[in-house]
Amino acid sequence: MNIALAQINVHVGNFAANLEKMLGYVANAKEQGADIVVFPELATTGYPPRDFLEFDDFIDKAEEVVNELAKAAEGIAIVVGSVSRNPVVEGKDLYNSVYFLSGGRIQQVQHKTLLPTYDIFDEYRYFEPAHEWNVVRYQDKTIAMVVCEDSWNVGNENPLYKINPMDQMMAHKPDLIINVSASPFNYEHAAERVRVMKVNAERYGIPLYLVNHVGAQTEVLFDGGSVVVNQKGDVIDELPYFQESMRIFNTEEVWSGDNISGEQPRNKMTLIHDGIVMGIKNYFGKLGFKKAILGLSGGIDSALVAVLAARALGPDNVRCILMPSQHSSDHSVNDARQLAENLGCQYDIVPIESIYNSYMDVLKPFYWGKPEGLAEENLQARARGMLLMAFSNKFGNILLNTSNKSEMAVGYGTLYGDMCGGLSVIGDVYKTECFELARYMNKDGEVIPENIITKPPSAELKPDQFDSDSLPPYDQLDAVLYQYVEMTQSPQDIIDMGFDAELVRKTLRLVNINEFKRYQTAPVLRVSKKAFGMGRRLPIVGKYLN
Amino acid sequence: MNIALAQINVHVGNFAANLEKMLGYVANAKEQGADIVVFPELATTGYPPRDFLEFDDFIDKAEEVVNELAKAAEGIAIVVGSVSRNPVVEGKDLYNSVYFLSGGRIQQVQHKTLLPTYDIFDEYRYFEPAHEWNVVRYQDKTIAMVVCEDSWNVGNENPLYKINPMDQMMAHKPDLIINVSASPFNYEHAAERVRVMKVNAERYGIPLYLVNHVGAQTEVLFDGGSVVVNQKGDVIDELPYFQESMRIFNTEEVWSGDNISGEQPRNKMTLIHDGIVMGIKNYFGKLGFKKAILGLSGGIDSALVAVLAARALGPDNVRCILMPSQHSSDHSVNDARQLAENLGCQYDIVPIESIYNSYMDVLKPFYWGKPEGLAEENLQARARGMLLMAFSNKFGNILLNTSNKSEMAVGYGTLYGDMCGGLSVIGDVYKTECFELARYMNKDGEVIPENIITKPPSAELKPDQFDSDSLPPYDQLDAVLYQYVEMTQSPQDIIDMGFDAELVRKTLRLVNINEFKRYQTAPVLRVSKKAFGMGRRLPIVGKYLN
Repeated sequence: MNIALAQINVHVGNFAANLEKMLGYVANAKEQGADIVVFPELATTGYPPRDFLEFDDFIDKAEEVVNELAKAAEGIAIVVGSVSRNPVVEGKDLYNSVYFLSGGRIQQVQHKTLLPTYDIFDEYRYFEPAHEWNVVRYQDKTIAMVVCEDSWNVGNENPLYKINPMDQMMAHKPDLIINVSASPFNYEHAAERVRVMKVNAERYGIPLYLVNHVGAQTEVLFDGGSVVVNQKGDVIDELPYFQESMRIFNTEEVWSGDNISGEQPRNKMTLIHDGIVMGIKNYFGKLGFKKAILGLSGGIDSALVAVLAARALGPDNVRCILMPSQHSSDHSVNDARQLAENLGCQYDIVPIESIYNSYMDVLKPFYWGKPEGLAEENLQARARGMLLMAFSNKFGNILLNTSNKSEMAVGYGTLYGDMCGGLSVIGDVYKTECFELARYMNKDGEVIPENIITKPPSAELKPDQFDSDSLPPYDQLDAVLYQYVEMTQSPQDIIDMGFDAELVRKTLRLVNINEFKRYQTAPVLRVSKKAFGMGRRLPIVGKYLN
Repeated sequence: MNIALAQINVHVGNFAANLEKMLGYVANAKEQGADIVVFPELATTGYPPRDFLEFDDFIDKAEEVVNELAKAAEGIAIVVGSVSRNPVVEGKDLYNSVYFLSGGRIQQVQHKTLLPTYDIFDEYRYFEPAHEWNVVRYQDKTIAMVVCEDSWNVGNENPLYKINPMDQMMAHKPDLIINVSASPFNYEHAAERVRVMKVNAERYGIPLYLVNHVGAQTEVLFDGGSVVVNQKGDVIDELPYFQESMRIFNTEEVWSGDNISGEQPRNKMTLIHDGIVMGIKNYFGKLGFKKAILGLSGGIDSALVAVLAARALGPDNVRCILMPSQHSSDHSVNDARQLAENLGCQYDIVPIESIYNSYMDVLKPFYWGKPEGLAEENLQARARGMLLMAFSNKFGNILLNTSNKSEMAVGYGTLYGDMCGGLSVIGDVYKTECFELARYMNKDGEVIPENIITKPPSAELKPDQFDSDSLPPYDQLDAVLYQYVEMTQSPQDIIDMGFDAELVRKTLRLVNINEFKRYQTAPVLRVSKKAFGMGRRLPIVGKYLN
């Protein structure tokens, strides 16, 4: 039997486009001799559909797509994730299901059992868990269909769930497992996905075919990396990362293990780079926009965003605005200009001093007698934010936000100033990782001028200002932030690791008191296992460690 | 037996303060002869603690509070909601529990079964549901303790859950039910809470004592309204709305129904008004701020916010900034000034024309040849936002956002302009409700100048501009928005109600394409059953009805 795994990039709620795309793959798979073509979890609606699932009309439209696909399931079977209605009045109204379509109709529907409700996931908000488990008989095979998380309750020290639907499935003695997934990217996740699927295949002694989404839905990135593991635990093949792709696998060949392509290489910076480029591309593409704008300061953060945007959208679609003030150093403007030229992006220089002065003229009578400080620094950042929005509004470009994860964490950014923008491109990349990423970008020749990477970071909002004046060295800061944000360690735990107690307390306090700023930040492309945004939900008025 | 219901206003994560407050109530209840004092759900941590629950250290601190309360439970029993650890490795690590403390120790712990995971609720993100149900024997009574939602699976046409923990409890033949709740306010909720508790008491034929939180945790408001219903379904008493309060009930008196105070009157505008005033007060109080600032335009929205802020914080703590442009009418400035004088708030007039011109001077070479439009209008709104932030930063006042729900819905506001602010005060109040609220505020004498209420709404960003130029009449718009936002009706459903098809499609499209603006908006004080913010989660790049 030939099984085609189609890791596709659908668009949340775009039913017509998603159906058309899947029909194309069905035709293609059939032409190539596939017996079954497999699409990911909730491929009809896109993932995550979020509260669109509360609209009855939205569910109707998903059901129409399944019915249309069923009609196309002639001479080929289709396995596809979609939503289904719970016929029982008690419990949630929906199931997250996988459909088996063949002979022009729906042959089987299996619901998802384990509903991830953590980090970015909200599945129990919408879905009832499965209470029955069945297999499908197709040609000479017995096939167990499962949805994503249902294969993940294996090999964890602290499992989130009391039951294991894989055990239930195995009672039916299937010949193979098909897993339809929406398994979001982080730079450690593909390795973990392969590991967990190997554990499954080995434990149950049968082959496993997993198909994942690829593409970005706002902040959530999917890397693809669909994977086939045989009953011995051999990784037969892994589909590419960050690319739509379909491959056909012969079940006998998978069983024999004669033809092993194996896993792909995984380099952290390659994954982050490629993931973000896809994230930008899809954000613009799915919103129907082409052009980006950003403020280029001469610092490393905006340099990274410029490179990533130029690679995602093409240099012609990226406009850079240099907005020097009296505190900007000459090298900043030169470095920024050099970068724009390296990239081939349009750039304009728009000094902000006259605007800043017009504010100060108006504010002078009110500020009289008060020492200069943060308010004046913020005014500069906000004048820049406003100018960028003035370009964005007039020319229809989306403003890209250039904040990194370290500064988002400690609130080292100005709300409505440098925190403006429709999409936070590197908001899940710590400052120390920014330097790594810059080096990675320059690996085949200098794109980012060396001086941008090597000079000491500065916001340049007052004379001779450096980040190190108000923040600890980034290597220490980032290490503490990682333990707190990603690992949810307590202050004492982190101190016990050998970090300075004062540094730890001050850092955690900054993280917590700046929740109000992050609340108003653009969606952040998620590349780590704990990004700011929808996956990390904290109270603003919470009084904890502050 | 005498049962004290203590509806208290705790602070999320502020363990020391929460403990101190509860110990005060324990002493007071004991002095007044109570046998038991009851505190709300998760009273130790505050509700909702959100992802603080992922920090082990946070759970330790909650356990310490329970242990301290247990020590104080001498000569009086304490019933209190808190978190507890799941000793079983499988499943979520925590339970949402209610503790019975007496004789200086923990006597009983009952976990919550039904975990609300919808709207603002995320309980299954953190908690394992209960699988065992037990009662407590205290003095001569058998007491069933339940947590909030566990009493709500009665009398619904489409129940969210398959099981009913109340039925399980009844197997133990309790004499009375104590329900500890975190039942958030909306203007319809108190009536619903009383109705559901009556259904419980009547169905099971035993008295029910419910204690609820009062106070605001960022956007989530709790109205209190703790309620006692006897076995006949008589509402014996309801504690006040929006006030911390303790009352003691004698179980024999409750049973006999001889002393019935009954339900409180509920007026929609009173509830909204009092809820928002409490919301502002607690937002500032819990953050440790005293002073607010807002832009007063002469329109009804900012007028409402000024009144609400003055009533919450005192007029001395509210600073109003009038920022006229060349498009502002004379009456706007006069009306705004009159309002500030009526309230006794400080006000300053800061014209924005010079700032606007300084932007246009800089932008002229770039804007050349382009028609004037939205970008210029937004610049005015943003110049005001920046000025307000300049005051906020220099003087330490929190900026209040003045957007209403109708404009938030359709995106009729400028991001980083009039959408600035730390707290959205009336973002859950439709424009038509704004007029009602203004009338309500003026019921005992004119606070808001009549002209502010009666003049046609205008953003005053270009000459002779009125909201009605680009939006349908507010009564129609709000009716359509209500059906879509609160009732999740489809376009066709709404058209079938008799609304113009074009109006419906255009409105729903505006709602959906403006998700990106709402994503970056301040938290909105929630007064309806579906507010923008954490309770309504939609994709930005979603392609549905747009």
